[in-house]
Amino acid sequence: MEIALLGTGGMLPLKNRFLTSCYIEHEGKAVLIDCGEGTQVAAAKAQIKISRINVILITHTHADHITGLPGLLLSISNTDRTEPLDIYAPKTALNMIDALLTIAGRLPFEVRVNTLDIKNETSQQLKTIDPMLELRSLPLKHTTVCLGYSLTLRHKRVFLPEKADELGVPLRERKTLHNGESITVDGREITPEMVTSDPRPPQKLTYVTDTLPIGQIAAFAESSDLFICEGMYGDPEKKKSMNEKGHMLMQDACSLAVKADVKELWLTHYSPAEPDPSVYKDKLRRIFPKVRISKDGRKTTL
Amino acid sequence: MEIALLGTGGMLPLKNRFLTSCYIEHEGKAVLIDCGEGTQVAAAKAQIKISRINVILITHTHADHITGLPGLLLSISNTDRTEPLDIYAPKTALNMIDALLTIAGRLPFEVRVNTLDIKNETSQQLKTIDPMLELRSLPLKHTTVCLGYSLTLRHKRVFLPEKADELGVPLRERKTLHNGESITVDGREITPEMVTSDPRPPQKLTYVTDTLPIGQIAAFAESSDLFICEGMYGDPEKKKSMNEKGHMLMQDACSLAVKADVKELWLTHYSPAEPDPSVYKDKLRRIFPKVRISKDGRKTTL
Repeated sequence: MEIALLGTGGMLPLKNRFLTSCYIEHEGKAVLIDCGEGTQVAAAKAQIKISRINVILITHTHADHITGLPGLLLSISNTDRTEPLDIYAPKTALNMIDALLTIAGRLPFEVRVNTLDIKNETSQQLKTIDPMLELRSLPLKHTTVCLGYSLTLRHKRVFLPEKADELGVPLRERKTLHNGESITVDGREITPEMVTSDPRPPQKLTYVTDTLPIGQIAAFAESSDLFICEGMYGDPEKKKSMNEKGHMLMQDACSLAVKADVKELWLTHYSPAEPDPSVYKDKLRRIFPKVRISKDGRKTTL
Repeated sequence: MEIALLGTGGMLPLKNRFLTSCYIEHEGKAVLIDCGEGTQVAAAKAQIKISRINVILITHTHADHITGLPGLLLSISNTDRTEPLDIYAPKTALNMIDALLTIAGRLPFEVRVNTLDIKNETSQQLKTIDPMLELRSLPLKHTTVCLGYSLTLRHKRVFLPEKADELGVPLRERKTLHNGESITVDGREITPEMVTSDPRPPQKLTYVTDTLPIGQIAAFAESSDLFICEGMYGDPEKKKSMNEKGHMLMQDACSLAVKADVKELWLTHYSPAEPDPSVYKDKLRRIFPKVRISKDGRKTTL
């Protein structure tokens, strides 16, 4: 999975900070999480290919997370894309998404809106990206219904051609075995396990923003290779105001990262009133050493 | 009138070019024309005060002219503004504007949507800005209903205190005279003309984008101090494609400026495929010498 955090701002787009949005590409197809005003510009700046976006996940209906949708869809329609595009969102977002699709007008590809359970953690396969890609969503605690998302990419078992040679498996049957089905060779059953080794461990990305630091997030993000989480402010004096507004501090995100035992934490969704979040780096590293004070366009490959 | 052309792009926002939008301030109150994705960021970059916007004029419902509306209104609501805000738009834009206002949610000030005639040139006073400010709109010819706008600021006659002294006009009566009403002093009628001189000539700004270069534009823009007009491309080979798409070339805008006898022309709404419109400067000046190949944030005072 190639990850690009297109923007790191919360509430409103700044001249030097785009709104929080994350692009996840796998085998030439991509998922976008959140799409605030200017996300298509942030995407162009990060040099990612919007035509590859097959799935858009919307966390909630606040403007800083969704109003870029019509512009992005129209710009995608200027590429040669014809395959359908799936939007996943809390079911309470349907009216807003309908309004935004009205503004986008007629598009040259189908847009399918899928709603997600807002009461319980749920999971489903993202087949339009990869049959091995699993999406999970977690209801968060914000001033409106909001979901956290987690993407897990499972890998196939690794095919071992030398084992297949030993067992005399014809070339044309090997794909069947690699896809997990047994075959019969000269009356003898060959199982996938006989010609494959254990797969690489799965990769997991968790994206959580616009929420109080509720305990369920730690379980949801458990063992993530990358945990992208909001940190509106670094000043502990803002804690009370964050509680009232349904947000968390950078310190809260670090504590969740410790509990979830993630490999790396990227902070995002900084307040417009926090001009340089990097001043908190040393303090935050004392809570969780692998914290990154992300800037717009930060990329990695899991 | 203070004018700031916040962006100069058409169709989609680029990383180095905001979408076309114009801010016009007079006596601490302002009109904004068009509000595409990112206009609030362009406004911040141009250091204009969005809290002063009392009127928003929408030319048409294509995304590059309206999707910035919810974000802008939400950002205005973060200022201390409480006065109502008037939106003027073609009546065909009502559904879209409703959708955008749904996305903005509940605002701490009233938003009044006023619709304009889409068949004929019409005019009305912009009383929430200045009783002397007149708005006119002209139906253009695009792929959807689209209006051109013109703002004319008329000035009061200039009060001459020495004339008032000569005629023995008491101080408390002078405002009445300046406001255009006659008074009686010692049984003698004093008319406003007796204590004022002719006003400064009116100032006129005309804003026209997303249209074929129809002849009516010349009459509509006649004698403008500033004519802001689209010029999608500078290459005459694009003329056929512009005809099909309901747009014009930079050359067309210059020819309209000549016919309208305007003082100055600012080009805008460049195609994303036109990376450096300034390369046409010399050719365009041969058609209309006072043409400016505007860049984002261009300002002037009329």
